[in-house]
Amino acid sequence: MSEATNRAGNPPGSHMTAEIAEQPQMFSHLLGQRRAIAELAARITERKPRFALLAARGSSDHAALYAKYLIEVLLELPVGLVSPSTTTLYGARPDLTDVLLLSVSQSGGSPDMLEVTETGRRHGATTVAITNNPDSALNDAAEMSVDILAGPEQAVAATKSYSATLLALYLLVDAARGGRGEQAEMIPELAQATLDTSHDAVEEAVRRYRFADRMVTTGRGYSSATAAEAALKLTETSYLSARAYSGADLLHGPVAAVDTETAVLALCSSGKGGEAMRAVLDTVHEHGADICAIGSAAPDVHATHRIGVPSCAEELAPVLEVLPVQRLALGLALARGDDPDSPRGLHKVTHTR
Amino acid sequence: MSEATNRAGNPPGSHMTAEIAEQPQMFSHLLGQRRAIAELAARITERKPRFALLAARGSSDHAALYAKYLIEVLLELPVGLVSPSTTTLYGARPDLTDVLLLSVSQSGGSPDMLEVTETGRRHGATTVAITNNPDSALNDAAEMSVDILAGPEQAVAATKSYSATLLALYLLVDAARGGRGEQAEMIPELAQATLDTSHDAVEEAVRRYRFADRMVTTGRGYSSATAAEAALKLTETSYLSARAYSGADLLHGPVAAVDTETAVLALCSSGKGGEAMRAVLDTVHEHGADICAIGSAAPDVHATHRIGVPSCAEELAPVLEVLPVQRLALGLALARGDDPDSPRGLHKVTHTR
Repeated sequence: MSEATNRAGNPPGSHMTAEIAEQPQMFSHLLGQRRAIAELAARITERKPRFALLAARGSSDHAALYAKYLIEVLLELPVGLVSPSTTTLYGARPDLTDVLLLSVSQSGGSPDMLEVTETGRRHGATTVAITNNPDSALNDAAEMSVDILAGPEQAVAATKSYSATLLALYLLVDAARGGRGEQAEMIPELAQATLDTSHDAVEEAVRRYRFADRMVTTGRGYSSATAAEAALKLTETSYLSARAYSGADLLHGPVAAVDTETAVLALCSSGKGGEAMRAVLDTVHEHGADICAIGSAAPDVHATHRIGVPSCAEELAPVLEVLPVQRLALGLALARGDDPDSPRGLHKVTHTR
Repeated sequence: MSEATNRAGNPPGSHMTAEIAEQPQMFSHLLGQRRAIAELAARITERKPRFALLAARGSSDHAALYAKYLIEVLLELPVGLVSPSTTTLYGARPDLTDVLLLSVSQSGGSPDMLEVTETGRRHGATTVAITNNPDSALNDAAEMSVDILAGPEQAVAATKSYSATLLALYLLVDAARGGRGEQAEMIPELAQATLDTSHDAVEEAVRRYRFADRMVTTGRGYSSATAAEAALKLTETSYLSARAYSGADLLHGPVAAVDTETAVLALCSSGKGGEAMRAVLDTVHEHGADICAIGSAAPDVHATHRIGVPSCAEELAPVLEVLPVQRLALGLALARGDDPDSPRGLHKVTHTR
């Protein structure tokens, strides 16, 4: 919409702007809960889970993808992402003894997440809800729960609830391997530095991609979650056609459609995932695409434009690198005359089964 | 390319055309192997797997998604899709006792699939390779293997090797639950009927979508695999910007970007998945999108254009409904002057780690 205020009388994007800015403070608050999270992690590890399942939809699905990497790499457990319809539509009732089921839902109100969690608990899983609403039905359904403490989120596009979910999942997994979240201690300061130092590069990216029609987002390892979230955020706020691929999958076919008309948003953080992105971007560069590299390793790859992010432990990079992504989605939506606070046709809680 | 012949001197798309047409005969051949597949299934069930993992990339990843639904619903085992990078980049070595690891790769030549399979086998998994090349390194690496018997595939875009993988996976899972593939017996005839009766509707779809820029593909349940494969096939052969969403995920955000400029390819087969698509398409219709419904339930949903497919057991519908999808990708590529046999920048085996 091009009006100066949206339905609620606020300037377009004002909620999303404020919620993006709140994140450093919110991370501090969440870090203060490390002891409670560690107690919960101890209850989980007592059960000696052998497999993990993650249930989520929408942005939470990307937080779940992040958790999949955390659990596979740091806890060395095999992990599956739940396809809710096998429970809700087809009535499958697998034996979930020894399975840890993490249900990730910002609202805690999705009927399909609820059904998956209730069914999983009845069939032997250790169930944990990760939500932004401790009074939700999902919290009641699960045996244990983690409150991500992001506070009320007014914009329909999830920003702070996404990054809070990432940090909560990191702290939970880190505690399960005996850590105390030491590597996360600097996250509030680093998040503020990310917002401060990336400002101009994001503004320049908004000018560059104002008229872009097709975007491909890509990352490897932990950052493939950020690539997926970036595509969703751009699609739902700016109505761009954005598609995420893991760097490896991109080379298995879709790279054929990458050409001089394509803007590629590449997540490149320091570490093994970012290292593996070099070869991907060399190929993408040969196809003539415009490359916007985001992350702490952005200076080291083939790129047309770069948005730097401070360095941190690789497994925490998604918490920081999503911040300029959110600002880019916000800036593009505003530049195109849309209101990212209330995208057309979207509601905060989606009722699917 | 717009030349009358491609690099090898054949008319553009001639390999893909021939390979699509071979599928009914190929299905017959594969059905002849049911006894061998049943023996293999018996060896697997003896191990009493409690969790299944699927490893795949590219089109095979969509076959793996199909297998995920089959295993979750028909065998009631929890299933995860492997993120190869946790093994290849991050060196995770989970204990895979009681885990069935199915590695799906048409060529059997992807280095990352090989490493995931070797590592999985060393760490306790029952490993099964599903390939179109019984002499491949992947077959050597896995303890057991299934040959999908699709014969040599010349076109870079996978068609018959994809559908053969689906049918092989179905026969394997059906045998593991004690079936003899009875429901698949009619598949060769039904596949021929699909190709024959869908011809005109596909031609009409090619005319309709000749100038389409943005496509969304969608399905639920078993058919979400077909939606994913459709997006990849359209992207890699026609360089369209096509993005797949499960019907449920589509309503969680991306529907905001669906408008009168969007062509939506909806997979609608008879059964619970197709039934659940009705509500999805009602919403998509409200957004003003053009809807092309493909499948046996296509007559029963909101649609602008319909491509019918004969009815069969819901879990086998993906084997049939992909046929008109392949022909649509072929037709659109040719209409746009591209050669789907050798898309720019693609090779048959992709070397990623």
